[in-house]
Amino acid sequence: MTETDPRFTSVAELFERFGQEDPDYAGQLAVYYEGELVLDLAVGPDCAPQAGVGADAGPDDPAFGAEALTGVFSCSKGAGAIVIALLVQDGLLDLDATVAAYWPDYGQAGKETTTVRQALSHQAGSLGVAGGFTAEEYNNSALAAARLAAEPPNWRPGIAFSYHGLSIGILMEELVRRITGRTLQEVYEERVRAPHGVDFYLGLPESEEPRYRDVLKPAAAPLPFIDPYGYLGTAFNSTGGFTREDGQPGDLLDLPNSREIRAVGMTSAGGVANARGLARLYAAASTGVVLEDGTRSAPLLTEHTQTIMAEDQVFGLDRADGGLKAFGVVFMKPTPEKDFGSWRVFGHEGANGAFGYADPAYGIAFGYVPARAEEMGTLGRNGRLSLSVRQAVLKALVA
Amino acid sequence: MTETDPRFTSVAELFERFGQEDPDYAGQLAVYYEGELVLDLAVGPDCAPQAGVGADAGPDDPAFGAEALTGVFSCSKGAGAIVIALLVQDGLLDLDATVAAYWPDYGQAGKETTTVRQALSHQAGSLGVAGGFTAEEYNNSALAAARLAAEPPNWRPGIAFSYHGLSIGILMEELVRRITGRTLQEVYEERVRAPHGVDFYLGLPESEEPRYRDVLKPAAAPLPFIDPYGYLGTAFNSTGGFTREDGQPGDLLDLPNSREIRAVGMTSAGGVANARGLARLYAAASTGVVLEDGTRSAPLLTEHTQTIMAEDQVFGLDRADGGLKAFGVVFMKPTPEKDFGSWRVFGHEGANGAFGYADPAYGIAFGYVPARAEEMGTLGRNGRLSLSVRQAVLKALVA
Amino acid sequence: MTETDPRFTSVAELFERFGQEDPDYAGQLAVYYEGELVLDLAVGPDCAPQAGVGADAGPDDPAFGAEALTGVFSCSKGAGAIVIALLVQDGLLDLDATVAAYWPDYGQAGKETTTVRQALSHQAGSLGVAGGFTAEEYNNSALAAARLAAEPPNWRPGIAFSYHGLSIGILMEELVRRITGRTLQEVYEERVRAPHGVDFYLGLPESEEPRYRDVLKPAAAPLPFIDPYGYLGTAFNSTGGFTREDGQPGDLLDLPNSREIRAVGMTSAGGVANARGLARLYAAASTGVVLEDGTRSAPLLTEHTQTIMAEDQVFGLDRADGGLKAFGVVFMKPTPEKDFGSWRVFGHEGANGAFGYADPAYGIAFGYVPARAEEMGTLGRNGRLSLSVRQAVLKALVA
Repeated sequence: MTETDPRFTSVAELFERFGQEDPDYAGQLAVYYEGELVLDLAVGPDCAPQAGVGADAGPDDPAFGAEALTGVFSCSKGAGAIVIALLVQDGLLDLDATVAAYWPDYGQAGKETTTVRQALSHQAGSLGVAGGFTAEEYNNSALAAARLAAEPPNWRPGIAFSYHGLSIGILMEELVRRITGRTLQEVYEERVRAPHGVDFYLGLPESEEPRYRDVLKPAAAPLPFIDPYGYLGTAFNSTGGFTREDGQPGDLLDLPNSREIRAVGMTSAGGVANARGLARLYAAASTGVVLEDGTRSAPLLTEHTQTIMAEDQVFGLDRADGGLKAFGVVFMKPTPEKDFGSWRVFGHEGANGAFGYADPAYGIAFGYVPARAEEMGTLGRNGRLSLSVRQAVLKALVA
Repeated sequence: MTETDPRFTSVAELFERFGQEDPDYAGQLAVYYEGELVLDLAVGPDCAPQAGVGADAGPDDPAFGAEALTGVFSCSKGAGAIVIALLVQDGLLDLDATVAAYWPDYGQAGKETTTVRQALSHQAGSLGVAGGFTAEEYNNSALAAARLAAEPPNWRPGIAFSYHGLSIGILMEELVRRITGRTLQEVYEERVRAPHGVDFYLGLPESEEPRYRDVLKPAAAPLPFIDPYGYLGTAFNSTGGFTREDGQPGDLLDLPNSREIRAVGMTSAGGVANARGLARLYAAASTGVVLEDGTRSAPLLTEHTQTIMAEDQVFGLDRADGGLKAFGVVFMKPTPEKDFGSWRVFGHEGANGAFGYADPAYGIAFGYVPARAEEMGTLGRNGRLSLSVRQAVLKALVA
Repeated sequence: MTETDPRFTSVAELFERFGQEDPDYAGQLAVYYEGELVLDLAVGPDCAPQAGVGADAGPDDPAFGAEALTGVFSCSKGAGAIVIALLVQDGLLDLDATVAAYWPDYGQAGKETTTVRQALSHQAGSLGVAGGFTAEEYNNSALAAARLAAEPPNWRPGIAFSYHGLSIGILMEELVRRITGRTLQEVYEERVRAPHGVDFYLGLPESEEPRYRDVLKPAAAPLPFIDPYGYLGTAFNSTGGFTREDGQPGDLLDLPNSREIRAVGMTSAGGVANARGLARLYAAASTGVVLEDGTRSAPLLTEHTQTIMAEDQVFGLDRADGGLKAFGVVFMKPTPEKDFGSWRVFGHEGANGAFGYADPAYGIAFGYVPARAEEMGTLGRNGRLSLSVRQAVLKALVA
């Protein structure tokens, strides 16, 4: 049906089966291989199968086509991590320096010697603040950072780690602000997004709003009590505030459906993208991409920078939920249960099941975005797609 | 039925249901909130429901009323930890010094650089001695300490941890002896127990014996073979000796039923208390309590001391049994499965299911003591009570 | 039926039951206790029960008698570890030096400060090379070492560990080559095997070939896809090459059935032995053995050397497969699920279920070799035998 690179037909077929198996399903998949867009698909009730390399559901189409944009939650951390990587590459940020060397206020209450490396790999124990962030702080990392700096660490820094779901973005943003005098979002727009034509926004411009599709939520299950002062409740800002546009108290999955949130594009969870944007972000970082003028960009990150950012920093059981996880510098790394690539892969998933990564061992960049939030933390469809892409590359390499 | 603080009625109702659901059940529950005793209950065959704030089953009552005392096993480690915290607070004990700095003999056979922090968070690998402690050493920590000092560590210090069920008390006691020239029990009596009127004894005086109720044991299940020279067998002193008063070989649960043991009050497992005593110990440490003369005591531990003692030192899988555990300095910390409070909580459970803790995030101090040893290591009733108390406090805070 | 030491009759009975329960079963068991061979048994279709101390199925017997030799896979790492221990004992190898101090090429690409201790306890992240080793490199550790030295580590050295199934032998062999100018196999033959008459060969001489019995493989189950560039695929050399003698692509279990492999005796997996050889190796190392001239050898390793080699270096979840594992310096250590001895035990299992260890707490050395590869990584029969031997020793000690 499409212009899919014939070496990846098996992947396209697998993806299209998702729509056949589940009439409710809509999603996007894009893959770059050695810098070329080899897959760019959308399936769904109103658009399946309709896509292919460069195909376009169009900004005025209500369907969830390949051009549609939606929230990609913690995939935003991957975009932020690429900005961090650029500062490291430029020699402006030393992973082994203390956070306090760049941000003196952070160096208090037991966090005096916490390193940037620890802070950017979920080891710092700066999960959140007592009582949670307010609505105002939630979307303004300068305010949030000031409160976070005053807190004692949630554990002896370096002895454990736990996913800083909300606060690692605050840490990244404050470091960028201290080092460059600008926001992470500005640096991202200028050095990463705009020059490479990446459909992944940290701060969605008004002009792109027509392409935004609300994140669809799954049927709500009653949540167990989460101690708002516990490790998990602190990380999730349980007691603090986010209010939806309809005035109801919102949860994490409502975040990007608020214009106020997506206008700012908080690095922890506020990015907006489509699958092609996700894949292109990682291709720009790792292999370079073909630009509008037909030239090929150099990879944003040198092989050395990719190696040090992708290097496992922690592997083990998360202090808060006990899950087996692994992180490089900001980026997620594979675990036996969530085996999304080689040991050199770097990427990040989002709470809705979106996923983006670059795998230098395979020369691929991968983007996947579902229209409806999939069960949090699972890799069901993601995992099958990711495996299928790697197997296709292996066949391509052998052929 | 009682003088229970009305904000905690739901907790009292939950607790009383235990007796209704299980006619065999008897237990005590006490809670301090911001230094005030807000719950003090006992339920059981001969006393249920009979109690309330200040209620008293009386010393001559054979029932397990609120005044009854019984063994609280490893809750004793929490009492010892408060003595340790006082020495840290006084500047007499440096957690980052080597153990050998205070106790030169310990610095041999691979333990030369082991720090106090490691030793007091189950990382030292001083689980026990080859062949186990003798009956004499078992109840005399000066003798036990001399043997422990000569042993090589059970692992490379600092690379793992395992609950030093019997020996962490020996380590605490020897450190106190070396630093103060007195026994931990003497310091505890003088600085903690007596001035705050705490019904929790490390060394039960003859005068309080009438209130002692034997720990009731559950129906014995046949134990699997535990290698006496393995990690677990060494920690449990499998080959060493404890003899019950009837001359039979005893196990851990028999310990406090021996007058000889409770007269000494070994810090690892020899304490005797009731629920009010447990809760009051933690209230005295964290918030202060109202004294007999009507004045309010200052908290024994400053906020800073509470923070450094409660700070997670280890989180992960126990070297001996593979269980997921977390410890601060001596104190137990919550894990996903044993989620007894906020990330700032500090406390300790006992082998019979007794539990005591202070949770500074909630302003509470909690004590729970069952008459019959509950399944070791579980938090069934404990967990439900603890959760209920926190939910009551949350409602109280909101109201 | 046999000359089994009567104190170990219960062990012999358990072992013989394996043959009765499973007519397909054939295996060897040998135990030294305080330097004396107290059990030396073989059971199987053509030889069961036929053995006893010193009994001999004979080199020309096609059955799997006590004299038969077969591949023992990673038990070979235990033989290599004893050579490493001798270099440590001689002061030629410092576990806390960097690998690069002995092997300068290794000190590149992020491995500059990796210590020998880390490298020899699976912490270095030198699992393999991109694309896998070639058939030539596979069996020639000098070539393999040169490629391994050039690779970046698979994780930040020291933050995790994963079983270096193929490469820890390469690391050991290169260290021995750099320090002594000879191969590990030569040092092993000269200092360990020949003088103690140990039927365990790293490099099987032509003269012993008649006693070799092919490793029998279990019915093959279809394997799941293993990413050849993932942690596990890299460690298993998934993309590299081993070709069986019949020209078919081989897997790990085919290795020793190739004369080329067993002639070299790679330390990772190429050793050939019987159960008595395995047990005698560990007895020679830990207690000494009675030599042909009737004298008793001194233990190859002093108590101090045994302690530092057996000391736990890592305990936790394997980076590649998430399994709970523990290692000393090279040697395997017990875990709750694989509880093969005291905390002082040191040994190693092989992929076919073979196992050898010394347990200084019990004075025993243990060897077990099945004719048919048992399910990888399990300790079913091994575990029952090992437990039974320890219980027999406990009874012997008490009696």
